[in-house]
Amino acid sequence: MNLDKMIEVGQLFEQYKDLLTEKQREIVSLYYEEDYSLGEISENLNVSRQGVYDTLKRSEKTMKEYEQKLHLVSKLQKQEETINLIKDRIVDIRCTLSERKECMDLIPELEKIEEICRGIIE
Amino acid sequence: MNLDKMIEVGQLFEQYKDLLTEKQREIVSLYYEEDYSLGEISENLNVSRQGVYDTLKRSEKTMKEYEQKLHLVSKLQKQEETINLIKDRIVDIRCTLSERKECMDLIPELEKIEEICRGIIE
Repeated sequence: MNLDKMIEVGQLFEQYKDLLTEKQREIVSLYYEEDYSLGEISENLNVSRQGVYDTLKRSEKTMKEYEQKLHLVSKLQKQEETINLIKDRIVDIRCTLSERKECMDLIPELEKIEEICRGIIE
Repeated sequence: MNLDKMIEVGQLFEQYKDLLTEKQREIVSLYYEEDYSLGEISENLNVSRQGVYDTLKRSEKTMKEYEQKLHLVSKLQKQEETINLIKDRIVDIRCTLSERKECMDLIPELEKIEEICRGIIE
């Protein structure tokens, strides 16, 4: 499978999986996360190969339509860029040793912001 | 109108307005953002008062269903809390004057993260 495509669908799935039906979620997860082939999914779920293919295509279309409206994938990317920039600047601040710790302690806090967006912190 | 209700719908609308139909978006905006009454909206848009009411109720229901799945309102609130906490800690860092500027310069960068989530920075 094309790696770019895999990453793209993976990012969409991370943001929008809860807007898919249970069946769509299962098939997208098996194909893109677990790396099952169309044939293997077809056999395991007792759905035709064409049915698996159609479900994948429909799920991708649905998630892309949501992304066009909500931009959650691109917002997360921009937040991550900004967070990484701030982290770099924190590391560069030349404080004395004791204040340095106070600065460095901000980094895990910054990482929390990203985790909230990813749904890791609920 | 109940203030809590107004804030709640306002927050939902900020996140999910692009998932409503154009008609729903217009009516929710007039009622909750522009503070028009049901009667005024009914007259201006040439829709029955009951029609305006039903559209408002349906829009709220739709947005609440999206929030149950995507949690964008609650994620934004948690991000804001975390960002405010980091800002407070930056202000508290006792650096010498020249490094203090480097610390304080991080604050507008942090505010960018919030603006990205709100869609102010595209």
